[in-house]
Amino acid sequence: MTKLTLILGNKNYSSWSLRPWLLMKQFKLDFDEVIISLYNPESKPKIQQYSPSGKVPVLLHDEITIWDSLAICEYLTEQFPNYHGLPEDKKARAIARSISAEMHSGFPNLRQNMPMNCRAKLPRKVITSEVQQDINRITDIWRYCRGNFGSGGDMLFGKFAIADAMFAPVVLRFITYSVELDSVCKDYANAILALPAMKEWIKAAESEPEIIPSFEL
Amino acid sequence: MTKLTLILGNKNYSSWSLRPWLLMKQFKLDFDEVIISLYNPESKPKIQQYSPSGKVPVLLHDEITIWDSLAICEYLTEQFPNYHGLPEDKKARAIARSISAEMHSGFPNLRQNMPMNCRAKLPRKVITSEVQQDINRITDIWRYCRGNFGSGGDMLFGKFAIADAMFAPVVLRFITYSVELDSVCKDYANAILALPAMKEWIKAAESEPEIIPSFEL
Repeated sequence: MTKLTLILGNKNYSSWSLRPWLLMKQFKLDFDEVIISLYNPESKPKIQQYSPSGKVPVLLHDEITIWDSLAICEYLTEQFPNYHGLPEDKKARAIARSISAEMHSGFPNLRQNMPMNCRAKLPRKVITSEVQQDINRITDIWRYCRGNFGSGGDMLFGKFAIADAMFAPVVLRFITYSVELDSVCKDYANAILALPAMKEWIKAAESEPEIIPSFEL
Repeated sequence: MTKLTLILGNKNYSSWSLRPWLLMKQFKLDFDEVIISLYNPESKPKIQQYSPSGKVPVLLHDEITIWDSLAICEYLTEQFPNYHGLPEDKKARAIARSISAEMHSGFPNLRQNMPMNCRAKLPRKVITSEVQQDINRITDIWRYCRGNFGSGGDMLFGKFAIADAMFAPVVLRFITYSVELDSVCKDYANAILALPAMKEWIKAAESEPEIIPSFEL
């Protein structure tokens, strides 16, 4: 019997943690969670018990340790191919990998100015012109995928896949900072928010007592 | 007959471009190159002809466009499985993905303070304590991989794989800024520099006329 344990940061704040967690819930995998509260004096030694990089998320799968949100998603897709974490069609699959990697290393202005904070509604003043450029690129991606690959479901490639997990934290940021969206992007954001797993995550985030001041602006 | 075209930035400066280029050379793939000089007024429109993200590298494979260094490497590994871009062993494969993704989204201090500049020797003063932490983590990764998975060759997982492509630009940064390395890391860096494809890249970088002042410190 295989054992999966996912090491996470605070659900309210840890955008990187949400990604593999959401994928694993959508894959209906049975897994344990270890939540480590971030940005306090005990965070670092606790994370280092599990994580070679000193960061969350980390997945323990039997004797294997794998870290980083995107690496965990690729690993799970390979280990559990029946769930189709990537589209099967060659072109869709190439685009899914491209946008997931673009999200993984990009959008620094959005990350820095619009930290994920699930339970909060925060002022739009953080949306500088650089942040708006990041938002524009993200919504371009959503429209492109929904328009070209979205038939057969309400996710970027129809059915839920890694790319949706990668962009799910952005959906939460857009809600928190009241980002205006056109109808295609609003429908996509609403479809993400309607996933039972997303509701479960947000509910857990709302009940966490910890507050990280730097993410409260 | 399949056609591959890789769109790159300046070889002297574009660390992201080196990664897929090196993998494709190691895979002995036949491909065309389009080099776009970065950080000048014509760069943006030229890149946008090819790249949905507005960034290089981009790979054109027949009718498919795929962008981002890591996504291109995963794509090529899947398209050309005989070259083993990822180790076959499940644990080694998980670690290879983890460290490649860690490199892909991490080490911001190293990136910012030690820009890649193949042909230059630049002062060590850029190595702040934050940069040194990034260097320490990278050399930890190299030692861990060489010690646990390195038998059968002189690369991180023995034979050349994606992970080596991901860290190759760091090897060049370490040379440019005279980073001191222990014998395991020095041997690994030298093995990367000894690859015929790396010699070819550096030679091309040295003969490029363009100078980007912000990368010259």
